[in-house]
Amino acid sequence: MSVVEQMLDTHPGNRGFGVEGKLRACIEACGECAQVCTLCADACLGERDVAELVTCVRADLDCADLCEATQRVLSRRTEGDDTLVRALVKACAEACRMCGEECERHASRHEHCWVCAEACRRCESACRELLAAL
Amino acid sequence: MSVVEQMLDTHPGNRGFGVEGKLRACIEACGECAQVCTLCADACLGERDVAELVTCVRADLDCADLCEATQRVLSRRTEGDDTLVRALVKACAEACRMCGEECERHASRHEHCWVCAEACRRCESACRELLAAL
Amino acid sequence: MSVVEQMLDTHPGNRGFGVEGKLRACIEACGECAQVCTLCADACLGERDVAELVTCVRADLDCADLCEATQRVLSRRTEGDDTLVRALVKACAEACRMCGEECERHASRHEHCWVCAEACRRCESACRELLAAL
Amino acid sequence: MSVVEQMLDTHPGNRGFGVEGKLRACIEACGECAQVCTLCADACLGERDVAELVTCVRADLDCADLCEATQRVLSRRTEGDDTLVRALVKACAEACRMCGEECERHASRHEHCWVCAEACRRCESACRELLAAL
Repeated sequence: MSVVEQMLDTHPGNRGFGVEGKLRACIEACGECAQVCTLCADACLGERDVAELVTCVRADLDCADLCEATQRVLSRRTEGDDTLVRALVKACAEACRMCGEECERHASRHEHCWVCAEACRRCESACRELLAAL
Repeated sequence: MSVVEQMLDTHPGNRGFGVEGKLRACIEACGECAQVCTLCADACLGERDVAELVTCVRADLDCADLCEATQRVLSRRTEGDDTLVRALVKACAEACRMCGEECERHASRHEHCWVCAEACRRCESACRELLAAL
Repeated sequence: MSVVEQMLDTHPGNRGFGVEGKLRACIEACGECAQVCTLCADACLGERDVAELVTCVRADLDCADLCEATQRVLSRRTEGDDTLVRALVKACAEACRMCGEECERHASRHEHCWVCAEACRRCESACRELLAAL
Repeated sequence: MSVVEQMLDTHPGNRGFGVEGKLRACIEACGECAQVCTLCADACLGERDVAELVTCVRADLDCADLCEATQRVLSRRTEGDDTLVRALVKACAEACRMCGEECERHASRHEHCWVCAEACRRCESACRELLAAL
């Protein structure tokens, strides 16, 4: 049982619906993706061909910022109105898609981009599954 | 001339289009709104009737997170594709609208909520004007 | 092998020293602690006795902010000069200590505070072990 | 009267001491410095000689993260114990010093680095003055 699961289980506002599982998965995927993207941005900055990785660095930084904000807002589980959550998770899925595609272009040359592309894809999926369940 | 204006003017990727003005205004409004919302959340936590301000605290925290992420992504001005920017600015406008409306309910009792509601409205406008210009 | 481990392994600036293990552990602990503290703040806000949990909410929010900033800066592994890293990790350990102690006071009544106190303690340890290794 | 000043004035926990002015100045300086550093990182990424600006990009990103976290924690004005605030503001001053020095090296070639160095210096001063007043 993950700590996020434990926290959601003991949260006084636990909705009890089937949404919980998707919510937990999305919070965890966002946390992982933010971490990996921050690391990938820095790894790209350390590569000799950094000049060709500038778009990748920017995509990494954007994606890390989106994932962190999404993780935080999802943790707040604002009751009732899901308009904000929906709009933000959509934007986050978009950031993950863009970053994943960009990283994939360098995945054969830079292994960190390969690992990052995978994390982005996992997070994009988790976002889309949560969106479908809301 | 604000520092943000100076920075955009000296940025090598300056687009030179009319978008610049809206972009600058939105970055500045997001920065201000994030600051004010963080302060409002804490002021609400310090009020005697904190139990009635819980929704307001959450809206403040959500809005601060959205504004910070939006400010950061806008500062990166990812060239070409505006899909992410558009989705994020829409989500940010939504966070500002929700927080502004919630703060307004307590504006007569708590002056910090009045100041915050104003900042949220300014930021929502800046977001919508940028969206229209993109 | 965790994704953070994979990312550090494939980072062009991998130092190869024994520091790597402590660095990875600290990045991961910060990520977990930030997540848990954000969730604990919201869970506290949802409790009936929220008025008595205000100090805990603030400590949670402070700790989440410190852990996120620390995770990001550690991921950048600024070469050579460790002055900033040292100062920040010290501040992070302090935030974890304060939040852990505050959560512990409510741990018997609120299980989320118990889970959070544990995460804070793990993160404080990871910070102190990294400090000792730098 | 700035919005931060208005918010601190209407905060129920206003300390009324002379610290208020330094606190406000530091919150505002951190907000400005975070904004400018994020913009400078991206401007550096857009320069032709990006390969020579990698250390500057990293310093910018570190400084932006420190300034944001500091702004948030200062806004929470945790009562009583200033241990965390002190440690964090120290770390923030260090990040500003490092980033300011790094930006200054490129200030003659890149005007955005010049503007950023100035913002870092202002923020470092605001941090040190708050530290002296605590």
